[in-house]
Amino acid sequence: MRNLRLTIAYDGSRYHGWQRQHGLVTVEGRLREVLSPITQTKVEMFVAGRTDAGVHAWGQVANFCTASQIEPERLRRAANGRLGPDILVRRIEEARPTFHASIDARAKHYRYRLWAHPDKPPYWLAPYCFHWYRSLDVEAVREAAQHLLGEHDFKSFETASKQPRLTTVRTICRLDVSRDGPRVRFDVVGNGFLYKMVRNIVGTLLEVDGGRRRPQELPGILEARDRAAAGATAPAHGLTLMRVFYAPRRPPPAGLQEQGWT
Amino acid sequence: MRNLRLTIAYDGSRYHGWQRQHGLVTVEGRLREVLSPITQTKVEMFVAGRTDAGVHAWGQVANFCTASQIEPERLRRAANGRLGPDILVRRIEEARPTFHASIDARAKHYRYRLWAHPDKPPYWLAPYCFHWYRSLDVEAVREAAQHLLGEHDFKSFETASKQPRLTTVRTICRLDVSRDGPRVRFDVVGNGFLYKMVRNIVGTLLEVDGGRRRPQELPGILEARDRAAAGATAPAHGLTLMRVFYAPRRPPPAGLQEQGWT
Repeated sequence: MRNLRLTIAYDGSRYHGWQRQHGLVTVEGRLREVLSPITQTKVEMFVAGRTDAGVHAWGQVANFCTASQIEPERLRRAANGRLGPDILVRRIEEARPTFHASIDARAKHYRYRLWAHPDKPPYWLAPYCFHWYRSLDVEAVREAAQHLLGEHDFKSFETASKQPRLTTVRTICRLDVSRDGPRVRFDVVGNGFLYKMVRNIVGTLLEVDGGRRRPQELPGILEARDRAAAGATAPAHGLTLMRVFYAPRRPPPAGLQEQGWT
Repeated sequence: MRNLRLTIAYDGSRYHGWQRQHGLVTVEGRLREVLSPITQTKVEMFVAGRTDAGVHAWGQVANFCTASQIEPERLRRAANGRLGPDILVRRIEEARPTFHASIDARAKHYRYRLWAHPDKPPYWLAPYCFHWYRSLDVEAVREAAQHLLGEHDFKSFETASKQPRLTTVRTICRLDVSRDGPRVRFDVVGNGFLYKMVRNIVGTLLEVDGGRRRPQELPGILEARDRAAAGATAPAHGLTLMRVFYAPRRPPPAGLQEQGWT
């Protein structure tokens, strides 16, 4: 069996999220429909980030196993030809047999886009940014964001769900707010994210812009460990999964290699 | 009566072109639906370029007359609030009573976008560029394009239609082909365009890339004055009306001004 690793970009607008659901159009569902006949495999995928309905991806990573001998680049072209314009398989590569897109992920980079201006965004940006009807106080939002950097219990920023997790402690190693005219980006990199955590963080930081909260309130919100302490959930269509980070591939210790334990 | 001039951007994907047609969703139709109740006027619009189904615009210009006293910026905001994300009224200004968006237009700038790469374009570019499945021989295409610059009879590049026109002679003052990786732009500026002329020019130039035609054949195609001599019509979704040029506003001669003949 081969283990194939895919890097996938998609426009989440028309999809009910990543994960296959009976009777709903999902990104995973579409990929399975397309990859299964080409590889003559009942494709079962593992994915780095199960994006929600309406969330986009530029660098989503998934893997699946197949006995098919098809060359990766041929598979990629065949899949892209069958998929619509809103899903693009950017890369397919052979992965080591034990590679798992979710378990092996070390960090993820999410970008949340805002159009901060009284006017609507231009039509080609509209599906990918949340319209914030005024300019943004970037300085205040940045000051608030600083309090979330590092390792914290992010329970206050977790929307309740049935997704199992051992802990609500996560580490955010980057939370940058940048502006280019009316375009604002929140770039968030962390070792893992609770359910709707990025959107809850952005929604809370936006309340600092409105003056409803002060930047100094952020530590208290973390301490509360209560969803009600934080702000609203920012809409899905502003969010894009940009990249998933994995450990660099090191060769296994020589002894194991010789015995074929790769 | 006031004469209001509008600068409008739209994504043509979902529309049957600019012009109002019974039973079809058009950009003009949507604008009338929205502007009429706000201005309490049965809005009749004049437009610079009647874009076809699927063609986009960034700087379309139109005008209409109304007795409404609504302040232009208020009208603009009200209209944008009622229009969907795919039509944006960028500007509304008072125009002189005789201003006519079509008759007064001196030149138009169209941009045709290509994604020249075996891979599909990324999802957010897909609606706005034509997928050309290989890299483009920009030098050869540029050489061919040079032959179309200046004043010519463009009958070979006109798709038959019932649109009345006095002559098929037009002047193209710019026809640039530029590339940034897989992104290719054709920028065409001219004093007027025949039906589907830009798309027919691009379609013909693309046949030079494939080697089906040589750049030196272009003068002969012009001379033929026959649609069959030129190439295929490039698809609508690659085309955007970028800007309409008008003469700078000069005050009318003093004598006329005094008599109120402005």
